[in-house]
Amino acid sequence: MITELVKKMTFSIGDFTFQCGKKINDFKMGYETYGTLNEEGTNAIFICAFHSSTSHAAGKYRETDKKSGYWDEIIGPGQLFDTDKYFIISSDNISNLQAFDPDVVTTGPSSINPETGTHYALDFPVFTTRDVVNVQYQLLRSLNVKKLAVVVGASLGGVNAFDWAVAYPDYVERVMSLAAAPVCDDWVIELESIWMDPIRLDHRWNNGNYYGKEAPVDGFALTMKMLTVASYSADWAKEKYGRKWANPENDPAHAMDNTFLIEKDITDLGYVRSKFGDANHMLYLNKMALLTDLGRGFPTYEDALKTIKAKILMVAVSSDQLFPLHHMKYHYEKLLEEGVKAEYFVIESRLGHMGILLDMAKMFPTIEKFLNS
Amino acid sequence: MITELVKKMTFSIGDFTFQCGKKINDFKMGYETYGTLNEEGTNAIFICAFHSSTSHAAGKYRETDKKSGYWDEIIGPGQLFDTDKYFIISSDNISNLQAFDPDVVTTGPSSINPETGTHYALDFPVFTTRDVVNVQYQLLRSLNVKKLAVVVGASLGGVNAFDWAVAYPDYVERVMSLAAAPVCDDWVIELESIWMDPIRLDHRWNNGNYYGKEAPVDGFALTMKMLTVASYSADWAKEKYGRKWANPENDPAHAMDNTFLIEKDITDLGYVRSKFGDANHMLYLNKMALLTDLGRGFPTYEDALKTIKAKILMVAVSSDQLFPLHHMKYHYEKLLEEGVKAEYFVIESRLGHMGILLDMAKMFPTIEKFLNS
Repeated sequence: MITELVKKMTFSIGDFTFQCGKKINDFKMGYETYGTLNEEGTNAIFICAFHSSTSHAAGKYRETDKKSGYWDEIIGPGQLFDTDKYFIISSDNISNLQAFDPDVVTTGPSSINPETGTHYALDFPVFTTRDVVNVQYQLLRSLNVKKLAVVVGASLGGVNAFDWAVAYPDYVERVMSLAAAPVCDDWVIELESIWMDPIRLDHRWNNGNYYGKEAPVDGFALTMKMLTVASYSADWAKEKYGRKWANPENDPAHAMDNTFLIEKDITDLGYVRSKFGDANHMLYLNKMALLTDLGRGFPTYEDALKTIKAKILMVAVSSDQLFPLHHMKYHYEKLLEEGVKAEYFVIESRLGHMGILLDMAKMFPTIEKFLNS
Repeated sequence: MITELVKKMTFSIGDFTFQCGKKINDFKMGYETYGTLNEEGTNAIFICAFHSSTSHAAGKYRETDKKSGYWDEIIGPGQLFDTDKYFIISSDNISNLQAFDPDVVTTGPSSINPETGTHYALDFPVFTTRDVVNVQYQLLRSLNVKKLAVVVGASLGGVNAFDWAVAYPDYVERVMSLAAAPVCDDWVIELESIWMDPIRLDHRWNNGNYYGKEAPVDGFALTMKMLTVASYSADWAKEKYGRKWANPENDPAHAMDNTFLIEKDITDLGYVRSKFGDANHMLYLNKMALLTDLGRGFPTYEDALKTIKAKILMVAVSSDQLFPLHHMKYHYEKLLEEGVKAEYFVIESRLGHMGILLDMAKMFPTIEKFLNS
């Protein structure tokens, strides 16, 4: 828990060249920090954002904020991520989903291209996790971080964390990848693919050119609804809802528009989750996710793993539908085979992928041990 | 295997009153039969259609047909469903998905309302599995079937088969429900819900009034794409595709429109699967699916189960994402608790829900034994 107010800061790079060769001018990214960097510059923990998150991992920006950052429970003096000991940095992403959140600073399709004076829209470069890591590296160097003690992330943030181990093997000591695999296999490609389609199906999307006009809010909300469905589990749905009707007066069997409560809730949540978001940003994040492949640029996946020097902790969730346990274990065993110092822990949870946040207390002892390893 | 040509027939009911109280005039449904009814009228097997199927379970309608019916492998003289022994009937559904298949006869939203001279569209009554069973019962009585030896169906057809046991307990001796549960729990409600949304999101859907105009083909194809994703498994995707690119020249990292092969295949398949379909029919079938509840009309689910007289065989698929094994087992144990003569068999398959069709040979010995029980 962070009690003092958190200050959102902006890292301005100027020109940034992507892996694909394209260059963006006036590149900016928001970030925030908790705790203090030691003199040697070696006590830093970097937190990678997940699909729908921002840099806001802990504390409040203003006294009046209703909610604290998403990991406030574990960040603070004497806590798991101990701010008396560590300097913690958390950043927004390239093309951060919450582009229109007033506290977010990001560069993406919704940004103005200084060369044309209009929004990039689909002219924004396709980017990969490596681009994200490269920006994060520049940020950390600018903050005088000499070496990362830990890089950590959940879900898409965990994918991001994995990439650090290969991108800058000498710069990172420990990688904690939570509910994420180092390769997006075809199952997740399928999901990322159907999470792009509703946006493109909404006629207001207009091939990405909706800025200053009506945005594809319904398509975007459907994408977020689908993400919600995939992120929980069959048990969660069954146990929480039990076929309750949205309105006790309106039997779902009596009209097409009468629904079950879960239909209403996940639909409403789709709109809530997309409220400050940008639909094109979502498309680019999905694209980044399905491009995930730690072996990219190496002759084989194994060759990439051989270059890793960091200790790695992979945490999986027993009921995760996005990253089935046996796929996670496959990657863990690959790490071991290639000589990586890797650990693997499974959270027993009935909550699906979301168990990584909602049942996170179950991994605390494992994380504590890993931090001190 | 049925070698003689199969004749598609039409069952015309005239007026049909739905459970919700609404009445449809000029109600019709297509069906076909294989084998011969015995004198006592007691050797009939009824096959319930699944979500995207028609009555066409076996044989060919014309010498020139490229494909036989979907269960042709198991229907025929001396086969699992032995036409030397059984009289087999298979019908289209109410609001059959393949409404524009020239071989399908169905009444649904795309039908003309004789009272108004226009398509029913969303004025078509919401219907439940019970309505489907009631129509099937009328068909069977018209064919002089005195008692069903077996009612069988896979997936939504299995849900349909289950309902027979409660709707007409004295009329059916054996129920085989394959990859289906007697209650659509909230997990499947979520899926059926997100399978309706793309159709409604397509601006050409126009609140269901697209007949004679442009149909919501893109929304409908996306729904079918999503159905495909959910119907297979993570292993199927990973093992079949292995991150292959759709076009070996076009790296997916180089442009938003460059895709992986699996993205292209499931997208294309969505259009193929919706080619002869009607989008409103899909909505009504989804609604029927999520209304599934064997306990409807009874004080409790258990009370409904107590009325069952038929022997029941439930077959589950180990990797089925729609009907997780522990949910299937829950219902099986409920059946036993309420005194139903129930059997349960699990197909070990890596193919997900589709394993019920693609790995069906694994259940043949169990089915054979059940048929002779």
